[in-house]
Amino acid sequence: MSDDAFLCGRLHLLQPLKGYRAATDPVLLAAACPATPGQSVLDLGCGAGAASLCLASRVPGLSLAGLELQPAYAALARRNAERNGIALEVAEGDLSHMPKALRRGFDHVIANPPYYPAAGTPSPHAARDRALREDTPIGEWVTAALTRLHPGGWLTMILSAALLPGALAALPPRGGSAQVLPLAPRAGRDASRVILRARKGGKAAFRMLFPFVLHAGPAHDGDRESYTPEASAVLRGGGDLSAAFG
Amino acid sequence: MSDDAFLCGRLHLLQPLKGYRAATDPVLLAAACPATPGQSVLDLGCGAGAASLCLASRVPGLSLAGLELQPAYAALARRNAERNGIALEVAEGDLSHMPKALRRGFDHVIANPPYYPAAGTPSPHAARDRALREDTPIGEWVTAALTRLHPGGWLTMILSAALLPGALAALPPRGGSAQVLPLAPRAGRDASRVILRARKGGKAAFRMLFPFVLHAGPAHDGDRESYTPEASAVLRGGGDLSAAFG
Repeated sequence: MSDDAFLCGRLHLLQPLKGYRAATDPVLLAAACPATPGQSVLDLGCGAGAASLCLASRVPGLSLAGLELQPAYAALARRNAERNGIALEVAEGDLSHMPKALRRGFDHVIANPPYYPAAGTPSPHAARDRALREDTPIGEWVTAALTRLHPGGWLTMILSAALLPGALAALPPRGGSAQVLPLAPRAGRDASRVILRARKGGKAAFRMLFPFVLHAGPAHDGDRESYTPEASAVLRGGGDLSAAFG
Repeated sequence: MSDDAFLCGRLHLLQPLKGYRAATDPVLLAAACPATPGQSVLDLGCGAGAASLCLASRVPGLSLAGLELQPAYAALARRNAERNGIALEVAEGDLSHMPKALRRGFDHVIANPPYYPAAGTPSPHAARDRALREDTPIGEWVTAALTRLHPGGWLTMILSAALLPGALAALPPRGGSAQVLPLAPRAGRDASRVILRARKGGKAAFRMLFPFVLHAGPAHDGDRESYTPEASAVLRGGGDLSAAFG
């Protein structure tokens, strides 16, 4: 187990040394969620709690709940919440059979689904494998999230760009005012990840936003300080992504 | 009727003064089509022929065919092809009931579907109205295009960003190696249009490319020469978009 600092030490997370380890994705996910103080948030597949706890460190007074398939990660999320003095209700279960404890409406649902299709090469670490690679199709994540939202509530997901068509196809016919923010590792590069936001019952036109660029310069220079100023403001400064969503 | 120069005068197109008039979109569509000399191309909804004729001016020896719903535009496409010394077979008909003359396989299908949903405010010009606003859902354009492709053939479409989710949803489950190139009016802005490419039977991961930026500077300055160098190379120089697709 390691004790990792997030958001320049505002948050400390226990994570297994081997297995799935949160890095920048849950931080970006939390930064993209338009929650305001006092609202309720469900974190689908919360892992060790990184996204929920990042969100709580930016927005005060949230009512936070998480769903996690793997008991070891669920226990870790509870422990991480307690260590950081943040209230987080964690239920164990599968999003296709939502536990009774979470069958209520939320103002926001956030999710960081597994990145790789189930058919890929398995990892030697079973828990990491289940966190990264899952048989649940991406469309079921979207459907489960929309089911749990109040009318007008926002879904915010970070996902591999490769999963975007499947996620969009699961939105209702009127599109739910969906917005896609591509996350480009550098200017000029394909997006590796995208953030998808959609509003339950929304009827605004789909928006394809200009990419949020993570690293400055043309290539990786081995320097971890290569973030663009905008990325640094989010990943180190704990800022939100509202400017990127316009 | 006006006689408009495209690609710095390489091409001259007769177009109605009132009604749907081709501008930059068919030029960008032609630039995104990866056709090579000697291949066959079907232009779905060819209008006055702008995209096909632009493509022919870049790639020699193509076998070009167009489908057009409106007889007046079909006649204009034939006349424009003849005036530019380019062979273009034009059939009149609806893509959901493909005319027999076009029921064969093609190496490429290109399309510039209407931009606005049928529910919008109608234009006072009936022909323009039909060209811009059609009841055929975007998914039917994708399906009709894929039906006409040889295995391994490429679909290339330019479409309003708002129509992208519907177009992606119509791709086959394995995605057809789809690639999306957002077209941003300026750096930092939402894409107004996107180019979607997909390969019939392709199994590569979906790619979200970095946007192609059309105009330099932060705002419109009333100067028609405000294109970025990359956009100018395509819109004036007749270059292709292969660099943008990587």
